[in-house]
Amino acid sequence: MGLSGIRTVGKVSFDKPADEQEVLHNRWHPDIPFAGTIKDGETVKIECVDWTGGQIGNNDSADDVRNVDLTKIHYLTGPFEVEGAQPGDMLLVEIMDVQPFQDQPWGFTGVFDKNNGGGFLDEIYPSAAKAIWDFEGIYCTSRHIPHVKFAGLIHPGILGCAPSAEVLEIWNQREGELIAANKLDRDVALPPNPVCAHAGSGDAAIKEKVGKEGARTVPGRPEHGGNCDIKNLSRGSKVYLPVHVPGAKFSVGDLHFSQGDGEISFCGAIEMAGIITINFKVMKNGMADLGMKSPIYIPGPVEPQFGPGRYIYFEGFSVDEHGKQHYMDVTVAYRQTCRRLIEYLRRFGYSDYQIYLLMSCAPIQGHVAGIVDIPNACTTIGLPVDIFDFDILPSGPAKALEMGTCAFETGVKEGKVTAGGKNSEHSFGGGLTHKATVVEKVKDAVSSS
Amino acid sequence: MGLSGIRTVGKVSFDKPADEQEVLHNRWHPDIPFAGTIKDGETVKIECVDWTGGQIGNNDSADDVRNVDLTKIHYLTGPFEVEGAQPGDMLLVEIMDVQPFQDQPWGFTGVFDKNNGGGFLDEIYPSAAKAIWDFEGIYCTSRHIPHVKFAGLIHPGILGCAPSAEVLEIWNQREGELIAANKLDRDVALPPNPVCAHAGSGDAAIKEKVGKEGARTVPGRPEHGGNCDIKNLSRGSKVYLPVHVPGAKFSVGDLHFSQGDGEISFCGAIEMAGIITINFKVMKNGMADLGMKSPIYIPGPVEPQFGPGRYIYFEGFSVDEHGKQHYMDVTVAYRQTCRRLIEYLRRFGYSDYQIYLLMSCAPIQGHVAGIVDIPNACTTIGLPVDIFDFDILPSGPAKALEMGTCAFETGVKEGKVTAGGKNSEHSFGGGLTHKATVVEKVKDAVSSS
Amino acid sequence: MGLSGIRTVGKVSFDKPADEQEVLHNRWHPDIPFAGTIKDGETVKIECVDWTGGQIGNNDSADDVRNVDLTKIHYLTGPFEVEGAQPGDMLLVEIMDVQPFQDQPWGFTGVFDKNNGGGFLDEIYPSAAKAIWDFEGIYCTSRHIPHVKFAGLIHPGILGCAPSAEVLEIWNQREGELIAANKLDRDVALPPNPVCAHAGSGDAAIKEKVGKEGARTVPGRPEHGGNCDIKNLSRGSKVYLPVHVPGAKFSVGDLHFSQGDGEISFCGAIEMAGIITINFKVMKNGMADLGMKSPIYIPGPVEPQFGPGRYIYFEGFSVDEHGKQHYMDVTVAYRQTCRRLIEYLRRFGYSDYQIYLLMSCAPIQGHVAGIVDIPNACTTIGLPVDIFDFDILPSGPAKALEMGTCAFETGVKEGKVTAGGKNSEHSFGGGLTHKATVVEKVKDAVSSS
Amino acid sequence: MGLSGIRTVGKVSFDKPADEQEVLHNRWHPDIPFAGTIKDGETVKIECVDWTGGQIGNNDSADDVRNVDLTKIHYLTGPFEVEGAQPGDMLLVEIMDVQPFQDQPWGFTGVFDKNNGGGFLDEIYPSAAKAIWDFEGIYCTSRHIPHVKFAGLIHPGILGCAPSAEVLEIWNQREGELIAANKLDRDVALPPNPVCAHAGSGDAAIKEKVGKEGARTVPGRPEHGGNCDIKNLSRGSKVYLPVHVPGAKFSVGDLHFSQGDGEISFCGAIEMAGIITINFKVMKNGMADLGMKSPIYIPGPVEPQFGPGRYIYFEGFSVDEHGKQHYMDVTVAYRQTCRRLIEYLRRFGYSDYQIYLLMSCAPIQGHVAGIVDIPNACTTIGLPVDIFDFDILPSGPAKALEMGTCAFETGVKEGKVTAGGKNSEHSFGGGLTHKATVVEKVKDAVSSS
Repeated sequence: MGLSGIRTVGKVSFDKPADEQEVLHNRWHPDIPFAGTIKDGETVKIECVDWTGGQIGNNDSADDVRNVDLTKIHYLTGPFEVEGAQPGDMLLVEIMDVQPFQDQPWGFTGVFDKNNGGGFLDEIYPSAAKAIWDFEGIYCTSRHIPHVKFAGLIHPGILGCAPSAEVLEIWNQREGELIAANKLDRDVALPPNPVCAHAGSGDAAIKEKVGKEGARTVPGRPEHGGNCDIKNLSRGSKVYLPVHVPGAKFSVGDLHFSQGDGEISFCGAIEMAGIITINFKVMKNGMADLGMKSPIYIPGPVEPQFGPGRYIYFEGFSVDEHGKQHYMDVTVAYRQTCRRLIEYLRRFGYSDYQIYLLMSCAPIQGHVAGIVDIPNACTTIGLPVDIFDFDILPSGPAKALEMGTCAFETGVKEGKVTAGGKNSEHSFGGGLTHKATVVEKVKDAVSSS
Repeated sequence: MGLSGIRTVGKVSFDKPADEQEVLHNRWHPDIPFAGTIKDGETVKIECVDWTGGQIGNNDSADDVRNVDLTKIHYLTGPFEVEGAQPGDMLLVEIMDVQPFQDQPWGFTGVFDKNNGGGFLDEIYPSAAKAIWDFEGIYCTSRHIPHVKFAGLIHPGILGCAPSAEVLEIWNQREGELIAANKLDRDVALPPNPVCAHAGSGDAAIKEKVGKEGARTVPGRPEHGGNCDIKNLSRGSKVYLPVHVPGAKFSVGDLHFSQGDGEISFCGAIEMAGIITINFKVMKNGMADLGMKSPIYIPGPVEPQFGPGRYIYFEGFSVDEHGKQHYMDVTVAYRQTCRRLIEYLRRFGYSDYQIYLLMSCAPIQGHVAGIVDIPNACTTIGLPVDIFDFDILPSGPAKALEMGTCAFETGVKEGKVTAGGKNSEHSFGGGLTHKATVVEKVKDAVSSS
Repeated sequence: MGLSGIRTVGKVSFDKPADEQEVLHNRWHPDIPFAGTIKDGETVKIECVDWTGGQIGNNDSADDVRNVDLTKIHYLTGPFEVEGAQPGDMLLVEIMDVQPFQDQPWGFTGVFDKNNGGGFLDEIYPSAAKAIWDFEGIYCTSRHIPHVKFAGLIHPGILGCAPSAEVLEIWNQREGELIAANKLDRDVALPPNPVCAHAGSGDAAIKEKVGKEGARTVPGRPEHGGNCDIKNLSRGSKVYLPVHVPGAKFSVGDLHFSQGDGEISFCGAIEMAGIITINFKVMKNGMADLGMKSPIYIPGPVEPQFGPGRYIYFEGFSVDEHGKQHYMDVTVAYRQTCRRLIEYLRRFGYSDYQIYLLMSCAPIQGHVAGIVDIPNACTTIGLPVDIFDFDILPSGPAKALEMGTCAFETGVKEGKVTAGGKNSEHSFGGGLTHKATVVEKVKDAVSSS
Repeated sequence: MGLSGIRTVGKVSFDKPADEQEVLHNRWHPDIPFAGTIKDGETVKIECVDWTGGQIGNNDSADDVRNVDLTKIHYLTGPFEVEGAQPGDMLLVEIMDVQPFQDQPWGFTGVFDKNNGGGFLDEIYPSAAKAIWDFEGIYCTSRHIPHVKFAGLIHPGILGCAPSAEVLEIWNQREGELIAANKLDRDVALPPNPVCAHAGSGDAAIKEKVGKEGARTVPGRPEHGGNCDIKNLSRGSKVYLPVHVPGAKFSVGDLHFSQGDGEISFCGAIEMAGIITINFKVMKNGMADLGMKSPIYIPGPVEPQFGPGRYIYFEGFSVDEHGKQHYMDVTVAYRQTCRRLIEYLRRFGYSDYQIYLLMSCAPIQGHVAGIVDIPNACTTIGLPVDIFDFDILPSGPAKALEMGTCAFETGVKEGKVTAGGKNSEHSFGGGLTHKATVVEKVKDAVSSS
């Protein structure tokens, strides 16, 4: 009578590699076999590995981040059959809980090396860096970013139902066109790639097909959601997911203990392994009934809350760090807003990399403020002051504290930038020129000596 | 003993044109003379006209919006001397209150015609439209968008201190370069323009100079703020503004009764005339002490608040309405998110233009969700469900209500789009093609008949 | 077309005494004539005098509080006829706004003398005291309680519909029985009293009848609401009021700029004159349909908000200041909770009277915590830390600031109590004995010398 | 490196009785031996049994509640030595998390029989009743109270440090005086009682002493806190506890998944066994430094949050159910407020006992509103509307749903009261007489037949 425990539908192992586990996969493809079955209306637990499949260690070097194998990431648990779900339905996914594993109470935030993954600010901060976070109940702290503690806004970075063959074809075509047209000196999208493709329990034929056609898990996509990295899609949230194949083929992974809007440093959330508890309901004919092309969601009631007056909001505009005016470019504006936050916080003794890591994972609020006042888009980022154990409100010159250092890749030495110091960028009247290189990169020097 | 009333430092008149009032101006320029003086620490009231200077009427036609003279807008009250303020200081501006005039308890939201101003969705919604809002205390309602009532998140769209000559030169140069390089079929920025330039009490020489050099008031700019259109910069907010000229030369205007993140339809806030009450404090050397290049602000404590579970969040990605994949383009993603919201709400009987107007002015939350997962930026928009007097939660097919119509320009007839109707865009599996023209434009037909 | 201003249905004058104004009255009685008529669905403005009818001045002496004439208080504006309202209906009263008069931007909080009104802590704090508050937009500050600023949770202390003759008879009988049985050395209720009874525009016969039978306005009463002093019944609230007489006979008054739960010092809110804007709707048969014996209300969306972690909560139990155990007495517990707050704050340099005044009017949260654990009821009071401009969080010994003084009645000298001082009550282990008299009362000494 | 799991300092067993476990005790006494040691600054996990020590089953009868042995309750885990803590210090207890056991995802709310425990409304609702709650992550539901789901405001009902011998003597004396003076027909306090006293690992001599002198755990007490049943003392809260004995002797128990203000039905929270994670810090000399006589606390950031407009507030006054006027009696007022809520909700088909159970455990907000307006104290209770899956807002006559029944003791049959039915109490004009007996008690009839 009553619940005696909640069924775990997907169990992962930490004793064997992710790509040997049939309950995991790392491509979106309709042919990956079901990893289990869930009833309409059922609540189940699903275990997840961290998104790098265990490549990152709880230590003080970012060499593992530097050398991360990006073909072996985003292992998702699933896909699960939800009984009764058919194309055109909506799958109502209610996130009842997300927790780290009891015996692994830690996670990590990383800045990828510009040459291996990069991040939103990699033109300015090209080196690999890392912060390890310890979890104690609802809170996390890091030995790499002292004087900070905050409650997790815990959520899955990725959830979604498998694409149909038709939807998959659309994805591959439109992303292929982008890749074909690319003139930038960086990847703009990732095409299907058989290397390290993992098709769950699929046999060799399926594995080959999935490797050849399967969509990469990095981007979120409008038709099904996927890697949306929406920080408020946390405990108690209801997510409405379009169903494209019979049985829905639902997968989930990339659990985050916390994240700021944008997940700025790419590996910017506090990444962790853990367990998600989900209730599933099928809404028959939901896509037409709700008029829905993309997922929608309703946040849960237990988000960490600060009063509105406990945020400092930074403003950024579509004028880039070289002083160039861009036309209504929200991406540029958001990058500038990030830089304003970094400039503000570095006065307290944090290094730029520490702040870059912190703003990626702490629950900062990133808003589109104005998007119609040509030529400047304006975005804002709200930084909660109550995550710090000292006063960061704007009341005058800051007193720098001893802040230690985050983990770096071997051969990188960080030069602290202090308020008014020669590395700073206070040449306000003279334009927003980019002067300082905050990190002195000595890799070449080291290797050549 | 004690306060006997708060001094009004800037009074406007509704009996004479805005450009004849010495307390108003509509360019940013260091040479516009002071319109009054405020003590360091003083709280004053400042009256403001609406941003069109009274061009829009409380009626049921959008012809005034269609024909608005965009050279005669953004009349700001000021500039005011704040005693003691010097370049390099920060001006701490605390917004004690914002109110409409007692005898003008109304405002308007407009969609500009694509050929005269346009808006964020003007490719899809090219016609001029308007909604009039009635204010009763903290609440507003509109005869043009029934079944909606919400509390104002009242704020100034524009505030800032005058640029120095050096800062002004930077602005004109970098925006000039953008204009020079423009290959789009639309304005990307507005250069200085003597037509209808108003330099307050400046004499002919000043007026000429201001007309020739003065920066247009449309965009916010990183060095001083200006037209940021930040919806949460509301009552009780503290704003920290860089000072570039002696006495600060502070100006304010473009009051909004409410606005959603993005101010999507350009004239998207509920625009109004009114009175702002501000306390001023000078923070000596604040720019260096705070490490500040752009304004920061701390929101006030009386924002209208809904529980987190009382928002429906829509997700959008950088795949445009033609199915084209863009690389990490937040602007594209935000436009798609807007469209998802429109598609959702139109099922209840609202026309697309009504929703376009509503989402521009109601306190929707626009977030940057993921900005690192190539190639798709993801943004979200949260729509508060409690502004509607009927249930909009996603529970199945919607029942369309009688929603009347917003105001349109003459000659435009709107075809309602209903759920499942032939004008809708539910061709999900077949890609996100753009099929429907929601508005049947019959101007030419009318004029030629 | 559209609103051109909101009708003021009740106008008060500050040039003639309250008891000469026909739009005011100070008793609850069904025979007081209508002061005006409001349509079902209409929004109107109603002006109100402060609850003492102007007896208290904006000065630095509490002699006016000491000598206040309590027969001349609680002048309400009304009663108004609401068209169509009949006994058994509910009157839905939506508070669209409350504002002080523009030219009277101030209010007061008083501690009444124990012998003339008293207050919740008058056994401990028997003297009259006062703080004057200045209003600047949403905020208030006081020269009598420095280092404090907070946003108003502005609301009417009193609103309700007139009792029927039958309801009035019940009131007079049950309160008469309490008075008849009283053995305490203080008033326990106030019977009808012709002295200074004001029956609005009623003629001599009505005035006599109202004086003889009319219920005093001091207490709230279950059948109609009245003087509930509910702090959250603020802007945007919807109140559902039982209707007992044809036309409802709605009255309102006793406006508060702010108040803490309990309105502890009796004249504990920030009392003010001002204007309330209300929308009226009649719910036919509402009393039966809603199953309602007493009013209910739904708060508005613009309450000042602090994060939950920005309150310090004090706990009190039903053990009184003499160490006596009471049985489940929430009143005793709440008084002890008040004392804990006073003891905490006095360490920062405030006098007990300053804190007593402050906790009466600032938005403290008073909760019933446990009411079933015999013999101790437990109540809590949450003190918002963000109303102070210094840090009051519990981190060690406090540093006392210069706090000046509140206004006192002539002849009272306050001895400051400082942490660890000889007047303090830190004899924890030895029981909660009451030792200190914080105020040295020298009235007699002065007059006899 | 970093955390590899958090130490569990107190482990309980479900295989042997509570009174045989050395880590548990059920009296407050300084001589109960330490059950373990915690370092200053350490975070530990502590397991707790439910407050009845497992007497209540997950079934559909309230006979176990009817027959509960109240001498065998409130088993606390501890007392723990906190290194370095000395009398006069404060123990800063930060609640990092509270969780039910994974394999026991359920709890219960009970109404005790009036003759065995009783509750706040036992004069009106004398029978034993019960609701079982199932936990799924953050949410709970009950088969005994359908159409309700809410997130847990999970917290310990009891925590505190042991009294010194001196403090214990004060407790026993003052509560003994209350008992000696009692003239009510019910227990007013519980004296020390050797029956079933459990002194942890204490030997026979200690056990005898603790039985003879040990304070009962039912009431909270001002000197140390104890059974405060403060619902918001939830995850993330910081509690400051006075230390009276060397090593602090901290104990904790009586975990609640959720509770409303007042814990109205006595066993009113959702009682559960579970694990609490706590960080401990010693504040040397904290009692004097903070000026503290009773505990204080600061709530955590993850409380379930609803918007202010998502509560219906009921008002109650100190006029009891017999129409008798009480003088400023908050206890009476709160009881009336409870009854108003019951009357409102019963219209939707719930029985009074279901509502009594629900309002005891759901996160209702109980406020002291006015405490100075003689003779009527006024209290309010806010009921969150979003815990129901149907609309309970006040919009007209209610439609009763099929609500099943809660669990009852054998022989009790509940008569539903429906809106307008003959059992209801709508005799408004005629005074607040108490007419209906909601439960038809047929025990005697049954046993005699």
